[in-house]
Amino acid sequence: LASRLPAVGTTVFTRMSMLAAQVDAVNLGQGFPDFPCERSLLDAVTDAMQADFNQYPPMSGVPALRAAIAAKIAHLYGQQYDANDITITAGATQGLTTAILCCVHPGDEVIVIEPVYDSYVPAITLAGGTAVCVQMDMRASGYTVPWAKVAAAVSSRTRLIVINTPHNPTGSILRGSDMHALADIVRGTNILILSDEVYEHMVFDGQRHESVCRHPELAARAFVVSSFGKTYHVTGWKIGYVAAPPALTAEFRKVHQYNVFSVNTPMQHGIASYMADPQPYLQLPAFYQRKRDLFRDGLAGTRFELLPADGTYFQCVRYDKISSQTEAEFAEWLTTEIKVAAIPVSAFYQHGIESGIVRFCFAKQDATLALALARLAAI
Amino acid sequence: LASRLPAVGTTVFTRMSMLAAQVDAVNLGQGFPDFPCERSLLDAVTDAMQADFNQYPPMSGVPALRAAIAAKIAHLYGQQYDANDITITAGATQGLTTAILCCVHPGDEVIVIEPVYDSYVPAITLAGGTAVCVQMDMRASGYTVPWAKVAAAVSSRTRLIVINTPHNPTGSILRGSDMHALADIVRGTNILILSDEVYEHMVFDGQRHESVCRHPELAARAFVVSSFGKTYHVTGWKIGYVAAPPALTAEFRKVHQYNVFSVNTPMQHGIASYMADPQPYLQLPAFYQRKRDLFRDGLAGTRFELLPADGTYFQCVRYDKISSQTEAEFAEWLTTEIKVAAIPVSAFYQHGIESGIVRFCFAKQDATLALALARLAAI
Ligand SMILES: CSCCC(=O)C(=O)O
Ligand SMILES: CSCCC(=O)C(=O)O
Repeated sequence: LASRLPAVGTTVFTRMSMLAAQVDAVNLGQGFPDFPCERSLLDAVTDAMQADFNQYPPMSGVPALRAAIAAKIAHLYGQQYDANDITITAGATQGLTTAILCCVHPGDEVIVIEPVYDSYVPAITLAGGTAVCVQMDMRASGYTVPWAKVAAAVSSRTRLIVINTPHNPTGSILRGSDMHALADIVRGTNILILSDEVYEHMVFDGQRHESVCRHPELAARAFVVSSFGKTYHVTGWKIGYVAAPPALTAEFRKVHQYNVFSVNTPMQHGIASYMADPQPYLQLPAFYQRKRDLFRDGLAGTRFELLPADGTYFQCVRYDKISSQTEAEFAEWLTTEIKVAAIPVSAFYQHGIESGIVRFCFAKQDATLALALARLAAI
Repeated sequence: LASRLPAVGTTVFTRMSMLAAQVDAVNLGQGFPDFPCERSLLDAVTDAMQADFNQYPPMSGVPALRAAIAAKIAHLYGQQYDANDITITAGATQGLTTAILCCVHPGDEVIVIEPVYDSYVPAITLAGGTAVCVQMDMRASGYTVPWAKVAAAVSSRTRLIVINTPHNPTGSILRGSDMHALADIVRGTNILILSDEVYEHMVFDGQRHESVCRHPELAARAFVVSSFGKTYHVTGWKIGYVAAPPALTAEFRKVHQYNVFSVNTPMQHGIASYMADPQPYLQLPAFYQRKRDLFRDGLAGTRFELLPADGTYFQCVRYDKISSQTEAEFAEWLTTEIKVAAIPVSAFYQHGIESGIVRFCFAKQDATLALALARLAAI
């Protein structure tokens, strides 16, 4: 059986989580919280099940949930989507892959920015497209997108540009100037935008999340993807959504309805009712900033060098004062010997570029972070 | 934006359900039960949520659920799968589409049997393949697969044959002789099999479900797809699975992990614990046979002509004594004027072949069936 994805193995997240479990390491690798979500969210799902919301929902999603999402986007970012411009997905990954499959034709090029989340390129390959990688610049001030290189990468075959802010794995965020640079590149072209904003509620130090939804010129040609798993501490529920203008939504749903058809009904109802209270997501920046600061303060006393962390629940660190191993080797050593799992940033590059940087997830109980810090300080 | 699926509109199920709701018709169109599932299944999911099973499950699925499925298949059909040969999917549709995407290369041909479930062909198109349609024979004794025509449709580019038993929409089932005919066709070739068995527990009159898993020669080259939504009366939960030998599972998971990554955690745990009791699925044939008989007995007094109904929760009927409209017209008339929604079988043909047959779903409360029958008898 010839492979459709010959370059693909098991994801680095799965591999590192398995290794962490095997050697009983503190798992700061794969991004997920180790603390519970709010009980009222669970109760809302139980209520929906008990109320017999257990049969097929509408293909595009439960209307109340889509309306709540549209209202939230309007409130936070000022973009007016109709509830019918929102499609509920079986997690953000399914939204990303479906968006790619619905608009990338064989022979098309898609520009992605490295380090790049590991699902984008296989989805482009499956669609018959070619990923064109532009690498982020990395300076003391952190990772930035070199828009001139993005502009230079555009060709007549460019169909889509994929962006991600807040950015996994670097924790960098795009700013207004980035959005203007992107708008300059796509203006007057047919290039679409896929914006992965699953960490939208984790932006720190009073900065704002620069959603594509703040920029009507971009939103008019964009699929915007987000996730409830990240926002509500339930990464295993696999409920996300895609917001897009009607013409893009129409194409998205053609693929969506034959990919998953629709998404878990009681979970959608539960989330819709839980969303009535904005506090959980409004409080999220402060909640995670405290954990980030606690983790950074701890790391400041170690031989790791901290990179800026403006968003996401990830902290990248340089380890060149500790080791000259490759990132994959070092992450494995950290996991098996120090008993703290991390993710090598090289796993986010097509050609495994080495920067001497690994990624930690700080979406953990304070006690978990303290245990990890004690171990990291002992190196 | 050029469409990847130009031939695709909104599914007939969505359209007929919307029309039924609009005109307040009894909805015997889209296949889903209108009665609740067992409360203990809901409680099992609530327990899983409360026990904090809310973060990412393993990509392939919760081990206890995969083990329970492998044990069930071994017990019912005698095929020994390892738990690791099972992958949990976000509904059977996602399993079907992922199976097609992982093995069909651009230029490959895939043989499908018409009438054909409406997701297969768009998935083949997305993969860059070509669907080669073979039509079922339709005699007084019911629908059968003409294996000689299937054999004649095989070419050097045939990569996959898709079968479906019990069959949606016709309610026919494959028998041992069908499986032997299929085995004769694929023996000595590299052709794979995709077997959609989501109605496996709805086979009537003491007949047995002829799973591909009863035929090691076929199972060795097959993706076998099933669904918990159909079996446990929770079509909105969107949890299914794919069983396949290791080499196929490896390719399946490469696509799966970048399509949805993984599937709802608490639902998986809840179903795993509910599966410990085999009674719910062992009792399903008798449960639905009673409804089928009730529905058939009622239809016997109408101007519809009953087709055989050996499996699934669907009953097909001829309406030529009532109308000479096309199936789509007749289904719409039934819905709006008679207030009973049905599905035109022509929607399951690529080129809309007309047989004067519509499909009713009898997975309904007895009172719902009685109301529908009273309306249908009045025609
Ligand atoms: C989908 S598993 C990985 C979770 C994640 O997004 C990450 O760790 O980067
Ligand atoms: C996925 S919605 C349709 C349900 C179904 O399989 C059918 O009605 O045939």
